[in-house]
Amino acid sequence: MRQILSTDNRIVKQAASLSEKKYRDALGMYLIEGPNFIRDALTFGGRLRFIFIKAGTLSKDADDIAALAEEGGPAVITLSGAAFEKLSATDTSQGIIAVAEKRTWTEGSFFSEEGSDILVLDRIQDPGNMGTMLRTAEAMGFGGALIMKGSCDICGPKAVRAAAGSIFRLPVLFSETPEQALELLRSHGKKPYAAVMSGGTFCSEADLAKDAAIVIGNEGSGVCRQFLEGCEGLTIPMSGEIESLNAGLAAGMIMYEASRQRRCL
Amino acid sequence: MRQILSTDNRIVKQAASLSEKKYRDALGMYLIEGPNFIRDALTFGGRLRFIFIKAGTLSKDADDIAALAEEGGPAVITLSGAAFEKLSATDTSQGIIAVAEKRTWTEGSFFSEEGSDILVLDRIQDPGNMGTMLRTAEAMGFGGALIMKGSCDICGPKAVRAAAGSIFRLPVLFSETPEQALELLRSHGKKPYAAVMSGGTFCSEADLAKDAAIVIGNEGSGVCRQFLEGCEGLTIPMSGEIESLNAGLAAGMIMYEASRQRRCL
Repeated sequence: MRQILSTDNRIVKQAASLSEKKYRDALGMYLIEGPNFIRDALTFGGRLRFIFIKAGTLSKDADDIAALAEEGGPAVITLSGAAFEKLSATDTSQGIIAVAEKRTWTEGSFFSEEGSDILVLDRIQDPGNMGTMLRTAEAMGFGGALIMKGSCDICGPKAVRAAAGSIFRLPVLFSETPEQALELLRSHGKKPYAAVMSGGTFCSEADLAKDAAIVIGNEGSGVCRQFLEGCEGLTIPMSGEIESLNAGLAAGMIMYEASRQRRCL
Repeated sequence: MRQILSTDNRIVKQAASLSEKKYRDALGMYLIEGPNFIRDALTFGGRLRFIFIKAGTLSKDADDIAALAEEGGPAVITLSGAAFEKLSATDTSQGIIAVAEKRTWTEGSFFSEEGSDILVLDRIQDPGNMGTMLRTAEAMGFGGALIMKGSCDICGPKAVRAAAGSIFRLPVLFSETPEQALELLRSHGKKPYAAVMSGGTFCSEADLAKDAAIVIGNEGSGVCRQFLEGCEGLTIPMSGEIESLNAGLAAGMIMYEASRQRRCL
């Protein structure tokens, strides 16, 4: 194991820069913190560049991970406390942080699973919501998530934490405009639905079992006009005086419904 | 309108003490912040003692609320900036805070709606989860929430915010032990189910349409042993490598399923 002591070290500085979205975008890399995430990454094909272990972290976790990161895998580097603190955004790191490469899917690989449902995220702002929805999409058997321009970064620390291991597994694709997204989805046989608070088809009465693309809108303003015009509206029936549900919760219920229908096929 | 300038005023001090659970419990009162909440409270039968408006808050909201709080209703009091700051936990108050009386339900009123489903919250720790689940229970047409000892305070500021107006509307009852809760539920003809990550009946195959009591467990440790032994397990079918869902999301999906079944009756 190589030890880097200086906070001025080039590798440490580059890794620290990944706390900012512009450097994550430019370098195509992001940080993951904590042994569970890193184990998930190593297990599920997430490509890691470096694993940093804080000097003095003598846990079984660190040993396990160093063993998992075999020859030809990521370099495992011990950092001084000061150098490590430059990288860690939270106290959840447990003395271990890795630099992961952003995984990219091609249009072909994204749509490769026949009949799959797709989650479309239209300018989701809250990283916790974003991550939770990716995780739920995997749990509910969705084929992938199409992320619209204007959404928060799926590789930011909060989104990565909320997504748990899904960040390494769920196929994601990015789209610039609703028109492009709708054309792309239709060309792959997906029927687009937009989640709306009222007036849409009740989700239990819509056919979501396969080839549905479900658009979840911005937490404040909902689904944008272009998606509303291009999609069938989809509404969760509600009782009482509640006007709306949290975007993550609404997405969860609709994805649950899609999964339920799929299991009935 | 009466104006209180001193931060030492008895009413201000008592209201400020409500930021602590022990005083909320002792006084049977809690704080709600912001015009939307206060409007909801005044509309849906939440009993308010005082409405405090920060001096200089000359919004239409403040005028509307002062008008809504008619004769015989809560006293509307203008506070100096310093006195107001003693009360406000957040910047969401928008210059208006009220002291609400905790609403209590009797066993009879809690179970008055025939056939209703009940949400049982077993030591939920996160106030945001707590509030969200109360809100979702109302939206999914549940008859009420039975809160187990060891859960966080439903009248804390975060829980109240997350519950939105449900805090004024959804019947809640408290229970000391799982044994007592199970006996109470059974005596009212409710069938108890416990949400478990795996091994339970798939929720779409359980009969949740009416008279179901659904136990959601602690975020870390899940449902306690006594509930596991006394309930039928209930599991959300999942795909992929995801082992668990956030408690609020799992509760939301199960309550959605119950609501879906009820609409099919």
